[in-house]
Amino acid sequence: MAEFLKVVSFQEARQKIIECFPRQGKERVYLTEAQRRVLASDVQSPEDLPAFHRTVVDGYAVLAEDTFGSSESLPAYLDYVGEVKMGQDAGLSLQKGQCCWIPTGGMLPAGSNAAVMVEYTEKLGEDTVLVYRPVGPWENIMQKGEDIKKEEVIFSAGSFLRAQDIGLLASLGISELPVFKPWRVGLISTGDEIVPIEETPTIGKVRDVNSHALAAAIKDCGAIPHNYPLVRDDFKVLKNTVELGLRENDLLIMSGGSSVGLMDVTLDVLLSFPEAEMLFHGIAVKPGKPTLAVKIGDKMVIGLPGHPVSALMMFHIVCAPALSPYPPLSIDARLELNLSSQAGRDDFVPVELREEKGEKLALPLLGKSGLMNILSQASGFIHIPYEKQGLVKGENTRVYLY
Amino acid sequence: MAEFLKVVSFQEARQKIIECFPRQGKERVYLTEAQRRVLASDVQSPEDLPAFHRTVVDGYAVLAEDTFGSSESLPAYLDYVGEVKMGQDAGLSLQKGQCCWIPTGGMLPAGSNAAVMVEYTEKLGEDTVLVYRPVGPWENIMQKGEDIKKEEVIFSAGSFLRAQDIGLLASLGISELPVFKPWRVGLISTGDEIVPIEETPTIGKVRDVNSHALAAAIKDCGAIPHNYPLVRDDFKVLKNTVELGLRENDLLIMSGGSSVGLMDVTLDVLLSFPEAEMLFHGIAVKPGKPTLAVKIGDKMVIGLPGHPVSALMMFHIVCAPALSPYPPLSIDARLELNLSSQAGRDDFVPVELREEKGEKLALPLLGKSGLMNILSQASGFIHIPYEKQGLVKGENTRVYLY
Repeated sequence: MAEFLKVVSFQEARQKIIECFPRQGKERVYLTEAQRRVLASDVQSPEDLPAFHRTVVDGYAVLAEDTFGSSESLPAYLDYVGEVKMGQDAGLSLQKGQCCWIPTGGMLPAGSNAAVMVEYTEKLGEDTVLVYRPVGPWENIMQKGEDIKKEEVIFSAGSFLRAQDIGLLASLGISELPVFKPWRVGLISTGDEIVPIEETPTIGKVRDVNSHALAAAIKDCGAIPHNYPLVRDDFKVLKNTVELGLRENDLLIMSGGSSVGLMDVTLDVLLSFPEAEMLFHGIAVKPGKPTLAVKIGDKMVIGLPGHPVSALMMFHIVCAPALSPYPPLSIDARLELNLSSQAGRDDFVPVELREEKGEKLALPLLGKSGLMNILSQASGFIHIPYEKQGLVKGENTRVYLY
Repeated sequence: MAEFLKVVSFQEARQKIIECFPRQGKERVYLTEAQRRVLASDVQSPEDLPAFHRTVVDGYAVLAEDTFGSSESLPAYLDYVGEVKMGQDAGLSLQKGQCCWIPTGGMLPAGSNAAVMVEYTEKLGEDTVLVYRPVGPWENIMQKGEDIKKEEVIFSAGSFLRAQDIGLLASLGISELPVFKPWRVGLISTGDEIVPIEETPTIGKVRDVNSHALAAAIKDCGAIPHNYPLVRDDFKVLKNTVELGLRENDLLIMSGGSSVGLMDVTLDVLLSFPEAEMLFHGIAVKPGKPTLAVKIGDKMVIGLPGHPVSALMMFHIVCAPALSPYPPLSIDARLELNLSSQAGRDDFVPVELREEKGEKLALPLLGKSGLMNILSQASGFIHIPYEKQGLVKGENTRVYLY
């Protein structure tokens, strides 16, 4: 083999991939295209929200000082000078001792700094309002900019934009945004035994599951997958495909090649690039040991195991943390079986989640290696750390959903 | 108002919407388009997986019976008759007393029913193999159809297809699938005070947040939103827009119209359709009381409150359970504040999630009503049930993520 094995822990593998991950381009998109995208720059509010002081109650706009000391038995007497209409400029200005009617959401007139709820007032004739309770300055008022201040950073670069974030941006009139371009990820399946899914495999052949499952997982990360034709165990063909893939994408993910021969050819091809730098070759995990990563210039190639269950799990363990803008989802559940594991290696075990009487239960999916039905049965996976020799039935365990 | 208020609990509202929800069309799509779609029919496996008996170890294919009673001190002597090659038809057939070499994944030859690991054997010359341990029938063998049986239902109608499910389908050569067509959802924002987001609202006006935030939330459910122009408080224009919207979509979601006048016009328009059937008008929740639903023929109109924070929350509480194929995500967290609430009404409170020393904490986002920044701060919401008068700081509470 061209280079010594550099077996690392999955945490190191993940960290190396994150550190050396290709940089994303930037683009400006219209607000409706910004959903589930990642901001490339901070976004500041272009305006104050609300744009003016407004009440949050129906009642009278007042100067708070005029109501100090008022009570049921000793109301404040204020001069009624008019009315603020909903959705219109207040259009008047209060002097000491004056008040005016104001509806919820109404614009506070100049001079006033509080609102008294109508319940605590009484109108006397045309010109006088009695106030039975004091209000403090700014009581019952939403002040200009109290919700969002002009020039306040409302989203930082790197934020993932959800539906509700789109709502906040709309409310501020932000109709165009700088976001990162989605990563382009080339997918190369290798192996003499792989056939396209439309073919019926003859004995010893298997269908090309990874091109489809990994493409779907890549789309789930908001990235754009691009499949290349299947490559057999041939240095020249593989080299040409990798060259093309590196040119057309930010990142290549290769899978398959469980045979030692193909693994050798793959490594030879990757390390034949003058800028190639092996990040790791082998991860001390079960399953997924034969995972590797090579940095080639400002691009990267990640090699995943051939078996689809392992390939997808390793994708989630080491690729998704760099590729996906979504925080990983995990929930805690009670383990339904004892699980043994070898110390000195991190184990990841697919589990099926159930809920029973409001309690979440995780059933490890074991059985003979190579079962494909685990793909559809698993809700996620659990992690048995390096230093442990297993987990005990009934233990609380974190399930990483996928 | 055209019809009496029929205030219901949110559970009743949700149930009525689910029961009367428009039916979805069906279509056939290629496997790569099936991700995040919902199956319209059961899918059966077209073949056995594996397609033949194969070993899961390197060793010798044998008749289990020939090894019974063998031990370190008294090995079984078997005649070596050849070799099965990886990826090829076994091409030979074993008789009693015979064995052959077989690699992991190799096809079991006719006549044999087990494999002995090479570690427990010894080759004597060219023609004899000693077996030091007995194996049971089918030991170390993955039997034909053991992973997935031909004609087994692998996915039921209604299944939501994830990346790994796409993988399983690929492995069985299923390249085309019957799925439900995505729902088309028309969005109509109403209200004299609403302006398009590109406009700077004059006093008393607000931007049309809901068209954008709800469209994004609808996309998150895998449905297709379609925005209609803003409608003012005008029976004829509103009626025309609703007619068009019903014709072009499966479902209409209207929002806004917090003013009693507009609410009346909206109701008048909806109930002017001869087939209109009011499902409910008002939900006993805070916020979001003015939510309503009307069935019109085989379509439905749902009216949401005007304020974006309430509109989105009610969308998640009563629309998403019918519209979204994704199971709702929830996690448990410890409440960081006391929360009071009025008995006789379900309260939903937006919360921000934090993690501290591995513990999840939920901070209720309170403050004056109408704050927009809650949109971006909230990770989800919690539910204070009808019969409770609040929740206590430190209580474990379920957070529904959005």
